[in-house]
Amino acid sequence: MSKPEIIITPDKMCLLASSWRSDRLKIALVPTMGFLHEGHLSLIKKARETANRIIVSIFVNPLQFGPNEDFDSYPRNIERDIFQLSKYGVDAAFIPTIQNFYSPNFSTSVDVNDLTQGLCGTDRPGHFKGVTTVVTKLFNTCSPHVAVFGQKDFQQAMVIKRMTRDLNWNIDIKIAPTVREHDGLAMSSRNANLTTLERSNAPKLYKGLCKGQTEITNGVRSAKKIQQIIYCFIKENLTEQIEYVEVIDKETLERIDTISRPIVIAAAVRLSKTRLIDNIILSPSNLSTS
Amino acid sequence: MSKPEIIITPDKMCLLASSWRSDRLKIALVPTMGFLHEGHLSLIKKARETANRIIVSIFVNPLQFGPNEDFDSYPRNIERDIFQLSKYGVDAAFIPTIQNFYSPNFSTSVDVNDLTQGLCGTDRPGHFKGVTTVVTKLFNTCSPHVAVFGQKDFQQAMVIKRMTRDLNWNIDIKIAPTVREHDGLAMSSRNANLTTLERSNAPKLYKGLCKGQTEITNGVRSAKKIQQIIYCFIKENLTEQIEYVEVIDKETLERIDTISRPIVIAAAVRLSKTRLIDNIILSPSNLSTS
Repeated sequence: MSKPEIIITPDKMCLLASSWRSDRLKIALVPTMGFLHEGHLSLIKKARETANRIIVSIFVNPLQFGPNEDFDSYPRNIERDIFQLSKYGVDAAFIPTIQNFYSPNFSTSVDVNDLTQGLCGTDRPGHFKGVTTVVTKLFNTCSPHVAVFGQKDFQQAMVIKRMTRDLNWNIDIKIAPTVREHDGLAMSSRNANLTTLERSNAPKLYKGLCKGQTEITNGVRSAKKIQQIIYCFIKENLTEQIEYVEVIDKETLERIDTISRPIVIAAAVRLSKTRLIDNIILSPSNLSTS
Repeated sequence: MSKPEIIITPDKMCLLASSWRSDRLKIALVPTMGFLHEGHLSLIKKARETANRIIVSIFVNPLQFGPNEDFDSYPRNIERDIFQLSKYGVDAAFIPTIQNFYSPNFSTSVDVNDLTQGLCGTDRPGHFKGVTTVVTKLFNTCSPHVAVFGQKDFQQAMVIKRMTRDLNWNIDIKIAPTVREHDGLAMSSRNANLTTLERSNAPKLYKGLCKGQTEITNGVRSAKKIQQIIYCFIKENLTEQIEYVEVIDKETLERIDTISRPIVIAAAVRLSKTRLIDNIILSPSNLSTS
């Protein structure tokens, strides 16, 4: 168990990554907003599979929060985060400040037009632009060969894959499976903001998605029908504040009519002030149309 | 005199740059749209000052041309360009195709909001977004330590400097002085599209800027007065199709009232179908206000 090197300034991070590159070490980046949980730790394990050096960035990026979103109340605990990282053999924790990462006349943005309009993009305008901009900065500061993102934020991972391809980064984007609590709730730093009652109900989001999955396994091929089943379940059992329930193509993230190829069932809800998202990927093997 | 390695695909370029980096060689990139002239060659010389390996990219980037601009008529001569490069000891000529550089569902853009609104940004909406997007792709494909741009496109160079800083590329952006024909006309690939008559008149753009410079040296400190002198000279002697004549702060590119710090005098005109730009930088030593 050794403490990761704590790096605050982008210049120092750049220098360290560059020296690792000179030594022909393979670098993996795990970008996070901190308040680490087992989901993050699974990303680190995934990173360890292919890289010799692991950087975990911790930065609550103001650019990806809307004016009425939870930037201020987003849970933070840097000391505990660093302790966690030392248990997992992380080499560097990159923890820039808002001031050193965004200079006063910062004026550049990176935007992916495709893939960002529906799903979370609908209720969070500007969110993905904030994500792709900060991930660009992290890529350039940390020079990774590999970057690992979680499947829970599936749309985000797909947007970053597209950006990486479009802008020619030689970085392998890996998507690690969602890690869940024992009751099925997808791990998320935001779960810490749920009340006890909300927390006990929250697994019904995943339960709703599973209900849809079961219907598909049973042979239902109408995306609309699946969507309605999930929507009704969540509305009756969890909350009326449903942002979306969608059955989409896994690659294009576009709505489909008939389920006949790899798809994602995705949903987002609000439990008072906390926004929760979750998804299930359904692979093609058993999805041939009758 | 040895021929540069001709590289067509981004993957191959990436691989070569990466092997140079592994060998701890210092890479300079000179991005061009081809139809090389002595202005470009001076950029290559500048690159040679600090780097062991020089990549010249040749790519007429459709993204930075507006729908009514001269993408189709932009002069091209790849064979002559490659011959020129071999004379200057360039290591690699990166010549991607539109198809291999922009995949069919390409959907990412890089945008600098500041610095891009006035000057050439006014008459060429979307131009700088096209430039910053393609330069991002070139940076990621060629992994340069240094990139050299020409002063003739001063606004472009400043926008790229800002982008590089904002997005944390560890790349030194160098700006090389404008190279001129014997009669003062700034070298530009577009000069090839001038008629004989237009070509003989074209140096009056620079002459107008010089007139402004002389007035400043003589003590005039009103930016508006300088602008008027240049504007009138160009209108009377060259063309009425003046896009702009501006006296701006060298760093912010904003209009100024009183000339008291480093400034740029910049102008853009149209000679029938050809757009010409030019500028003069005036440094501070002799610019104290009276």
